[in-house]
Amino acid sequence: MNTNRQWLLSKRPHGMVSEDNFTFQEVPIPRPGAGEVLVRNLFLSFDPTQRGWMEDRESYLPPVQLGEPMRAGSIGQVTESNNPDFQVGDIVQTTGGWQDFIVVDPGQAVMGLTKIPSEIPPEMMLSVLGVTGLTAYFGLLDLGEPKTGETVLVSGAAGATGSVAGQIARIKGCRVVGIAGGPEKCAWLKDTAGFDDVIDYKHEDVNQAISRTCPNKVDVFFDNVGGNILEAALNHINMRARVVLCGGISAYNATEPVPGPVNLMNLVIMRARMEGFIVIDYMHRAQEAIIELLGWIQNGELIYQVDVQEGFENIPNTLNRLFTGKNLGKQLLKIADPQ
Amino acid sequence: MNTNRQWLLSKRPHGMVSEDNFTFQEVPIPRPGAGEVLVRNLFLSFDPTQRGWMEDRESYLPPVQLGEPMRAGSIGQVTESNNPDFQVGDIVQTTGGWQDFIVVDPGQAVMGLTKIPSEIPPEMMLSVLGVTGLTAYFGLLDLGEPKTGETVLVSGAAGATGSVAGQIARIKGCRVVGIAGGPEKCAWLKDTAGFDDVIDYKHEDVNQAISRTCPNKVDVFFDNVGGNILEAALNHINMRARVVLCGGISAYNATEPVPGPVNLMNLVIMRARMEGFIVIDYMHRAQEAIIELLGWIQNGELIYQVDVQEGFENIPNTLNRLFTGKNLGKQLLKIADPQ
Repeated sequence: MNTNRQWLLSKRPHGMVSEDNFTFQEVPIPRPGAGEVLVRNLFLSFDPTQRGWMEDRESYLPPVQLGEPMRAGSIGQVTESNNPDFQVGDIVQTTGGWQDFIVVDPGQAVMGLTKIPSEIPPEMMLSVLGVTGLTAYFGLLDLGEPKTGETVLVSGAAGATGSVAGQIARIKGCRVVGIAGGPEKCAWLKDTAGFDDVIDYKHEDVNQAISRTCPNKVDVFFDNVGGNILEAALNHINMRARVVLCGGISAYNATEPVPGPVNLMNLVIMRARMEGFIVIDYMHRAQEAIIELLGWIQNGELIYQVDVQEGFENIPNTLNRLFTGKNLGKQLLKIADPQ
Repeated sequence: MNTNRQWLLSKRPHGMVSEDNFTFQEVPIPRPGAGEVLVRNLFLSFDPTQRGWMEDRESYLPPVQLGEPMRAGSIGQVTESNNPDFQVGDIVQTTGGWQDFIVVDPGQAVMGLTKIPSEIPPEMMLSVLGVTGLTAYFGLLDLGEPKTGETVLVSGAAGATGSVAGQIARIKGCRVVGIAGGPEKCAWLKDTAGFDDVIDYKHEDVNQAISRTCPNKVDVFFDNVGGNILEAALNHINMRARVVLCGGISAYNATEPVPGPVNLMNLVIMRARMEGFIVIDYMHRAQEAIIELLGWIQNGELIYQVDVQEGFENIPNTLNRLFTGKNLGKQLLKIADPQ
């Protein structure tokens, strides 16, 4: 291979994102400058938050510019290094984007450039030990503050973040109820991930189902969805409940502003808190989370699931799997094997 | 006077509350039993939260039942006592309701029965030192956590709670901007209450006006209004902003559920918190608040305004003044003078 394949953001989406928003091109492989590292991408991470990066608006990261490779988290391998901290062959985590190669200045990269121990598989590093796992860890523990015996409700529960958040709540001694779409995801949550109960939002009334599954009401709601699901959950919050706003995937592809819940005043009546966060703020504490998560994985308390697509040409359509609910667990795409 | 006049809740409101929701009656003056105290109401407090008490739904207090006197905070005078802690003539604060007389069991009363020092006028005790003042104090300081130099935005700023919350923020060294309806209220906030700037929501676009008046964005939003005002404020929150949900008067008389803000995801992007509270939970700390508020009043840093109506027959219509915005400051009604 002597070219760098890229998928560029070429048109901002209005509504559902599709392959039409991207343009394929091949360019020469870039060369690293002084202090820089050339990384070949092996695995790409797909995350709902990427939909926000495609919009031309201020957010926690600047928007991806038209004509730039789409931004994405990645695992790659160092193929050339002008930096003494990185050797050719190192497996690294960075924000490699939708392309084969990226030149990284380790001090400047959005999410840094981190060497991955060789005993940790890339699929684990990009999922339960990666951004989505850390999001679950810090969001649930720091904002949700779950206590033994409390009820924790998770939306998007079969997703990469929700499934980890729910399992951590279970490990902490909580009753855990997950909301997911379809019997396959619900069965996985209950039978494999050890959730106490599940709600299939595609086949039952979520408001009634929360009454059924949360007889002691909801102490922590870990929300990845927003919209009607958030409104239903707010009907069932307990005194001093914590609503952890992790994401709002239900509105990410909306073409019109989506009204918020009609029952925000329940936060007043129940003296409850709703709080948002971005995992980037916790990156300086990543190590403590990774060590604890890895311990739970190794003793069998925490499982994770990855959905690995293949083929550079399938990158744009793989993003869509997140919004159509096709993914079961963390959505990844494998570009290449390490050398 | 040898009868007890009462306004009973006779019909639950649908939409705007009116005199039709109440029935006037005269009954014999009740007699206190063992340990009980007979109190004659002198002043009634009018508060937006009373609208919620009229609904037949669970909340932080049980609903007022049909056929019961309407619940209301009050200052009264003990006219008969079977309790050694209270003497005839004592001025007391309680939840006297819309009637001349009430028998109180001090251990059972919703908001207790508290003796008021004779040097504190009833109008001060029922406003800035009463439930609305304490709501402002604990909501702003405990939930809002304002820091010197931060920007604090207050809605319902000319009301009994908002005006105190804003002034406390000013005392704490914040830039304070108030949102109120009409030039008279706005002038009072700026010229008398010492707000740094004001927004007249009846005569300007609130979203644009927040940009104009809060050049460093909003660190604390103390919200009494909800709806469009909350949505506008969420467009301008700073990193780690605190949204103190005190009330949502914009929806209290709605006949249909009122959608929430479309931009709740700003809480995520800005790592911000939205939290509700009920002042009842802070009553065990009332003394510390009253001492500090009284100190600020005495040194001229904190002013308060009361709107005192008169006449037992005007009680129902006085409640409506809160929802039509006629009141300037704390709405009270005087029933009788102390003997």
